[in-house]
Amino acid sequence: MAKFMDVHRGMQGITAEQLLEAHKADLAIEKDESVHFEHAWADPESGHIYCLSEAPSAEAVQRVHERAGHRADEVHPVPLQV
Amino acid sequence: MAKFMDVHRGMQGITAEQLLEAHKADLAIEKDESVHFEHAWADPESGHIYCLSEAPSAEAVQRVHERAGHRADEVHPVPLQV
Repeated sequence: MAKFMDVHRGMQGITAEQLLEAHKADLAIEKDESVHFEHAWADPESGHIYCLSEAPSAEAVQRVHERAGHRADEVHPVPLQV
Repeated sequence: MAKFMDVHRGMQGITAEQLLEAHKADLAIEKDESVHFEHAWADPESGHIYCLSEAPSAEAVQRVHERAGHRADEVHPVPLQV
């Protein structure tokens, strides 16, 4: 298992409720891929969303996001953290 | 005070020690700007670093990073989080 940061763009105007719904959609199916989405941070002005997860691979992260209806634009392993 | 996510690019090959040193350099001066850098995550392969902070403004975040010698490529307020 490793940590991943993924980025979604083009989500200008996202609300707190929409972010929560999207996160819940991930949580509802993440176990199928042994992924856990820990946090998400959104900037409604630029439309960027950053999601931190623990997962077996970047592909597993993307499969959960895709099935939940919101494919990520980038998925990066982040093996280093402070 | 608000949350910010900033992104550094072009840091391919960064090591755990270098990330820690960079983080310590921020921590050493962050109080001057009433900023607190909470976490940083790095992908040595793509060279991306993501820093989560609490700060009065994006400009304050950038001033700390600049003085510490590592200007961010993007600084985004992230008022929404889950």
